[in-house]
Amino acid sequence: MAESTQKTDYVVGVDLGGTKILTGIFTQQLEVIGRTKISTKPERGTKAVIERIARCVQEAVDECELSFKQIRGIGIGAPGTVDAGTGQVLFAPNLGWQNVELKKELEAQLGLPVFAENDGNLSTLGVYHAELESKPRHMLGIFLGTGIGGGIIIDGKLYKGFNKSAGELGHMVIDVGGPKCACGNRGCFESLAGRQSLFLKIQTMVKEGHKTVLTEMLGPELNNMRSGDLRKAIRKGDDLVEQVVIQAAEYTGIAIANLMNILSPEVIVLGGGIIDALADEMMPIIVNTARDYAMLGTDKGVSLFASKLGDDAGITGAAVIARRETQ
Amino acid sequence: MAESTQKTDYVVGVDLGGTKILTGIFTQQLEVIGRTKISTKPERGTKAVIERIARCVQEAVDECELSFKQIRGIGIGAPGTVDAGTGQVLFAPNLGWQNVELKKELEAQLGLPVFAENDGNLSTLGVYHAELESKPRHMLGIFLGTGIGGGIIIDGKLYKGFNKSAGELGHMVIDVGGPKCACGNRGCFESLAGRQSLFLKIQTMVKEGHKTVLTEMLGPELNNMRSGDLRKAIRKGDDLVEQVVIQAAEYTGIAIANLMNILSPEVIVLGGGIIDALADEMMPIIVNTARDYAMLGTDKGVSLFASKLGDDAGITGAAVIARRETQ
Repeated sequence: MAESTQKTDYVVGVDLGGTKILTGIFTQQLEVIGRTKISTKPERGTKAVIERIARCVQEAVDECELSFKQIRGIGIGAPGTVDAGTGQVLFAPNLGWQNVELKKELEAQLGLPVFAENDGNLSTLGVYHAELESKPRHMLGIFLGTGIGGGIIIDGKLYKGFNKSAGELGHMVIDVGGPKCACGNRGCFESLAGRQSLFLKIQTMVKEGHKTVLTEMLGPELNNMRSGDLRKAIRKGDDLVEQVVIQAAEYTGIAIANLMNILSPEVIVLGGGIIDALADEMMPIIVNTARDYAMLGTDKGVSLFASKLGDDAGITGAAVIARRETQ
Repeated sequence: MAESTQKTDYVVGVDLGGTKILTGIFTQQLEVIGRTKISTKPERGTKAVIERIARCVQEAVDECELSFKQIRGIGIGAPGTVDAGTGQVLFAPNLGWQNVELKKELEAQLGLPVFAENDGNLSTLGVYHAELESKPRHMLGIFLGTGIGGGIIIDGKLYKGFNKSAGELGHMVIDVGGPKCACGNRGCFESLAGRQSLFLKIQTMVKEGHKTVLTEMLGPELNNMRSGDLRKAIRKGDDLVEQVVIQAAEYTGIAIANLMNILSPEVIVLGGGIIDALADEMMPIIVNTARDYAMLGTDKGVSLFASKLGDDAGITGAAVIARRETQ
């Protein structure tokens, strides 16, 4: 390695999702120099998932031909309420986690300082730092992945609130008595537009006898369905998938109108696996529905668009806090 | 009057509601020395309502044996989106108003400086200044009157957002496809728990043949129903009214849980005519439902209670901005 490479030259950003773990190695200038991805397998339990995170980090460091001595710290985003002070994951329904000492356990395994935060918060920070040039005062990030996470920037800073848990946008109830959500409630935004809910809806409709090309693509059980499969099905003219995706986009628009009415942000950025795969299909409906439902005047001049960062949003935000906390 | 009474000794606070106009005369120490109340009569049109506001202010000043020369300025809260800079009411569905020059018109009629703001914002400010001793960093006010308004305090200051329209909590959709709201959407919090929606629900049920003591109290058309009538009916053992009020309390709890998940405030204060009349009946259900629906950890240590200010919340907040703007 060149002489300029010093012990403290790099930070690691980890995005722990309900489906996959993604790790990125970043320079101090927040340029990503390598990524590693493995599946999460939450059904194997907390200990196994934390070992998988550690392995994913080790592989990423190794792939970049670095050693742990060159890593200053690790930021990690988890899908749920996280106490950023203690690094504890209080509640992550899509992982089945409650009160997990994520920071402590990972630090013990990796021997490096770890900083944990809610994944929606980190993805929002990632978009704010790496994608938005205008640096708006008030901004929202909304991420449709396995579940739905979000983050709120107020006065240019991540807003956490009294219990440091602000930004749980996915568990805003928008359809009282609606579908069951992983959190235990019914009718949450996540239960209407998160990937898990879309997959479940399609699987249920297939069981009821509805037809879709997805069964030809994936088999009758629709195993290993991915967001990209929905896009492929729609482009093949599949009505069932199209209707499910249109509905999810409408729910997303309504959720965004709620947030515009409550918070009046200047910029709203969408991301996550569902949006990355289906932006062309969903964004026009999301934008129209949001503007239609927003109170008169509240959407004026507001930018609402899909992030171009894709998977990098979460790991970038994680790198941002790792850099900040180790400076 | 005593010598200490000077030209600039007083400010006026006005709360313009969908049902009534309330005016208070305040000292610079925000003590109220007199109040006047008249009905709004929005069906008579914008001009007539503004004349009624002016008359209400004149009567209040007169009742306190003051002259306009002793009034420094007037603050007024309107039920809708208000541009505080221009004093224009952009949209107030419960008044049928769009783009009304409230500040300009009132200043022309009264010859005093007028400062307009959303009524939910002002009621929240009123509670913050006159009722909360702890001055929490992050606080929400939620007011169930003719409609539902709200206000958000972040970092000790009223949060307005990019379009200065933040805090429109009543138009958060919580039941997609639910009852029609005055704003044009369906299933807004206001359409499920605002006074207008409760009255409409009861009237519809009576037309469908359901029995209630309200018809004995108010006649078969249920004319001139008030929030207090609902309390009286429940205390007479009326099942219909009790069920409607319980449902409204549950919807309110769900709306509050949404707001806790999104904003994680330290203190949430409820007020408005519905709460003032029915706090005993509704608050236990509101609190239980909110804590039940909030994400694990987000309601920890959060205070959630009914304001004791009653009608004074809005006029006090209006006096706060009148004082601030004329200092």
